[in-house]
Amino acid sequence: MMKIDYNEAADILKNCGNAYVLIHQSPDGDCVGAGHTIYHMFRAMGKKAKILCSDEISDRFAFIKKDYEDEDFEPDIIISADVADDKLLGSLREEYGDKVELCIDHHISNNGYAAKTLVNPDASATCEVLYEIIKILGIPVTGAMAACIYTGIATDTGCFKYENAGARCHEIAAELKRSVKINYARINRDMFDVKSIGRLKMEKSVIDIMEFYLDGKCTMICVTTDILDKMGVDAAELDGIAGLPLQVEGVEVGVTIKQRDENSYKISMRSANDVNVSDICAMLGGGGHIKAAGCLLHGTMDEVKKQIVDAVAKGLEQC
Amino acid sequence: MMKIDYNEAADILKNCGNAYVLIHQSPDGDCVGAGHTIYHMFRAMGKKAKILCSDEISDRFAFIKKDYEDEDFEPDIIISADVADDKLLGSLREEYGDKVELCIDHHISNNGYAAKTLVNPDASATCEVLYEIIKILGIPVTGAMAACIYTGIATDTGCFKYENAGARCHEIAAELKRSVKINYARINRDMFDVKSIGRLKMEKSVIDIMEFYLDGKCTMICVTTDILDKMGVDAAELDGIAGLPLQVEGVEVGVTIKQRDENSYKISMRSANDVNVSDICAMLGGGGHIKAAGCLLHGTMDEVKKQIVDAVAKGLEQC
Repeated sequence: MMKIDYNEAADILKNCGNAYVLIHQSPDGDCVGAGHTIYHMFRAMGKKAKILCSDEISDRFAFIKKDYEDEDFEPDIIISADVADDKLLGSLREEYGDKVELCIDHHISNNGYAAKTLVNPDASATCEVLYEIIKILGIPVTGAMAACIYTGIATDTGCFKYENAGARCHEIAAELKRSVKINYARINRDMFDVKSIGRLKMEKSVIDIMEFYLDGKCTMICVTTDILDKMGVDAAELDGIAGLPLQVEGVEVGVTIKQRDENSYKISMRSANDVNVSDICAMLGGGGHIKAAGCLLHGTMDEVKKQIVDAVAKGLEQC
Repeated sequence: MMKIDYNEAADILKNCGNAYVLIHQSPDGDCVGAGHTIYHMFRAMGKKAKILCSDEISDRFAFIKKDYEDEDFEPDIIISADVADDKLLGSLREEYGDKVELCIDHHISNNGYAAKTLVNPDASATCEVLYEIIKILGIPVTGAMAACIYTGIATDTGCFKYENAGARCHEIAAELKRSVKINYARINRDMFDVKSIGRLKMEKSVIDIMEFYLDGKCTMICVTTDILDKMGVDAAELDGIAGLPLQVEGVEVGVTIKQRDENSYKISMRSANDVNVSDICAMLGGGGHIKAAGCLLHGTMDEVKKQIVDAVAKGLEQC
């Protein structure tokens, strides 16, 4: 692995030929925005680029998604954007995993699978990294580029809500809003406010089954296969519910228990403020980040709950 | 009414004596933030200021709220912050309504009740207006001031989500984050993510009774007194539910019908994108803003619903 700086990455993008741009599986706003930003940069430089992803890009991103039917070409370079680990290439890994010449990313965990890697862990999003390169190259920012860059930054920061929303991402939002007039509020609405009625009903069901422990500091959602059947939702629709318990006033640790089979459970743990859930999950044989961690537990549901509550109680004491 | 500019307002604040600072009833993040920003500015200039509000300031704002027990003084000047209309002074109007010498605001609807008014309708928040004055006066921004200013801007823009989140408010957020290290993400979490379990359960109940019309483009929530009893919630807890229907994918107009007495209903209408609900409510004898309007209707619930659906259908056609 060779780490490179902004200027070197800008040089490569300027001097290379046509590119395939790989983005990570389960594509989110940042990798979709980053991939399409590169696409528009290449068009502006008179070159071709085509985005490849192992999963389909959701229609939520229809406003930035391009149709590539006319883009039939052999690539001169393989680039990846927002892909921290070659495993995240999914089904594209076998063909392209060892052929990535340039990786542009913002994840501190980037494992260096590419020949050359530009990674800025202080950037809120890979789209923030790309904005700096656009400035170096002096490429004029079009409305299409602004929509991509803004979407990446906004989605990765929860609309400037999370800790990773540093000063720089606000500066970029300001520059975009001053120079490129597109409907930023509409992007925010589509990304943050709109939910399918199925999702809304699922969230409602989750509130119904929420349990409170340790004076309301620990909330638990236990999703057994029975409950899933009763809700009439698919396990896939439960993505992202781990954050829901943290909405409740006074909650420090939110726990989601998903049943895998009769006696095994996947635990996701989220911290609202200062409690280190990585430490708590480590006590239970798992791990993760300070604010988001997980583990796998075995036993009856009651045994599993007791193990979790005991570990969370210790975690709260240490805080 | 005399409109003044930033420099004149800065002069008044610099040269006046001790002040009472009036903020509007049902105090929100912007007026609480603005009042306390002025308080800290006055302390920095060696003067006293005291915030007066007709309603109690919620404990949600405990992190910026000051205890004024030691602030017993007669004011040399009465200032108002974020108060667009003297009616919004509530119970303070009788004593102070005609004594306000300086009003600092950002509402285009400001009715000019004060002797001198600085109003910038392009500002996202009154706290944005105050930040410019702080810069003119050269007052160093402390952590306490940063918390107040950030809270006002963030709450009035829905964490930079709404149309009023212009370039300038992002620039100010960037300047604050660069120069004053406080936990901005924690403020965001407390302001935007945390809800009481009662509120969560109420939102859940509202999803249960949501009705869909016009191919899902119009959603209606009908809150009869019967339903309120069944939900076990107080009418006051329903504040802000008018925005909930807009969360549903594909919805253009969200309607909330609240029963007042047997045959009269208060209607709140919200537009997700381009439909003008002010026009729709005007057809029904009401009015308001393009994206948020209301009216009062009489008849049976079914008659009222039919009138609304017909009017919304016309509004959708015109769009």
